[in-house]
Amino acid sequence: MKDMNELKEKVRAFVEARDWDRFHSPKNLSMALIVEAAELVEQFQWLTEEESANISGAKRQAVEEEMADILVYLTSLATKLNVDLLAAAEAKLIKNGEKYPAERVRGDARKYNEY
Amino acid sequence: MKDMNELKEKVRAFVEARDWDRFHSPKNLSMALIVEAAELVEQFQWLTEEESANISGAKRQAVEEEMADILVYLTSLATKLNVDLLAAAEAKLIKNGEKYPAERVRGDARKYNEY
Amino acid sequence: MKDMNELKEKVRAFVEARDWDRFHSPKNLSMALIVEAAELVEQFQWLTEEESANISGAKRQAVEEEMADILVYLTSLATKLNVDLLAAAEAKLIKNGEKYPAERVRGDARKYNEY
Amino acid sequence: MKDMNELKEKVRAFVEARDWDRFHSPKNLSMALIVEAAELVEQFQWLTEEESANISGAKRQAVEEEMADILVYLTSLATKLNVDLLAAAEAKLIKNGEKYPAERVRGDARKYNEY
Repeated sequence: MKDMNELKEKVRAFVEARDWDRFHSPKNLSMALIVEAAELVEQFQWLTEEESANISGAKRQAVEEEMADILVYLTSLATKLNVDLLAAAEAKLIKNGEKYPAERVRGDARKYNEY
Repeated sequence: MKDMNELKEKVRAFVEARDWDRFHSPKNLSMALIVEAAELVEQFQWLTEEESANISGAKRQAVEEEMADILVYLTSLATKLNVDLLAAAEAKLIKNGEKYPAERVRGDARKYNEY
Repeated sequence: MKDMNELKEKVRAFVEARDWDRFHSPKNLSMALIVEAAELVEQFQWLTEEESANISGAKRQAVEEEMADILVYLTSLATKLNVDLLAAAEAKLIKNGEKYPAERVRGDARKYNEY
Repeated sequence: MKDMNELKEKVRAFVEARDWDRFHSPKNLSMALIVEAAELVEQFQWLTEEESANISGAKRQAVEEEMADILVYLTSLATKLNVDLLAAAEAKLIKNGEKYPAERVRGDARKYNEY
């Protein structure tokens, strides 16, 4: 897959072929998205932070699939609400950059904890 | 922003400039991601499904920002675990397609409910 | 079971018998709790609000079990952090009552949406 | 507060006084509950497991309040669906006990990871 537009189109076709669009209100999609996010959390819940950085095999495969599911629902929601995800992420990074200036928060765990 | 690679690079630079990488274990990133997913859910929790499809103004802006935050953390996690998000999404769509053949599930809400 | 104290004791004994306490840091328990909350959300994600109020059979059984799991993890966390759940809930209701005085918010959906 | 029944009654009166019952479909309550669960996760997301077990001051207060919010929404949902939370928890502990016999899972992290 070469870019987000192609993903958007593939997800749209997948949903249309199954006539599932009528279930896809933004409200419902936000629920589906957090369910997938929780399946990602579940993969890490009993691991130490160090173990979570060194996953392999079936665990790694499961993590990749949950990440994929999150992106798929996020893409469905973006289509539904006509949001340009990359533009939104770029705008948010700029806003976050103003809120947390590098020189002020650098190396300060407390500042990070407020983040 | 032209593509996911550029987003990946911008997110990486943002985190590096603040020396926040040491907090970013996959375990912690999965927690941050679900917190953002919940902030998205919060925007929709008291709306009807129909209202959720017709948001505007400050509500719409907030929804876009939460979607952006989800993508940013998903991108951080992808960098950390060396996951190609688009390839993972493509593989997952194929797998889902085999699990829910269009001709079998089309127009069947019960099948969808198992999804 | 007659009260929360008996539940607390049963949950504690269950965990101790399996030597699982070493996995039960508050951080990990918060992850386990949100995973169960998501399994509850999953039961409702494709239902209309009206359908969600009229569940029965296997769906109803699943919902009860997810609610039970949430209470069990909440109880584990309360034991771990020495929190009196009923006292905390009572204090929070008083605080919420001051934040949202009945006479001001009554029948005002917008006020509720800020809630 | 002496027991869950008193909490149930207080929560019911709180909601009724504000005429908020019409927003409280089980679907919506499950969303509100996971939002509160995420606010709990947020308190722990950048802490180490050890730090999460040694919280105090404002952090501890915030954690208690999020736990209270979770219990309040769980109680609202239980009232709505006519679920006896303590009985459900007791039944679930018995079911879990059969699924994870102490003698088989004791001290086995892998077994726990399947949990």
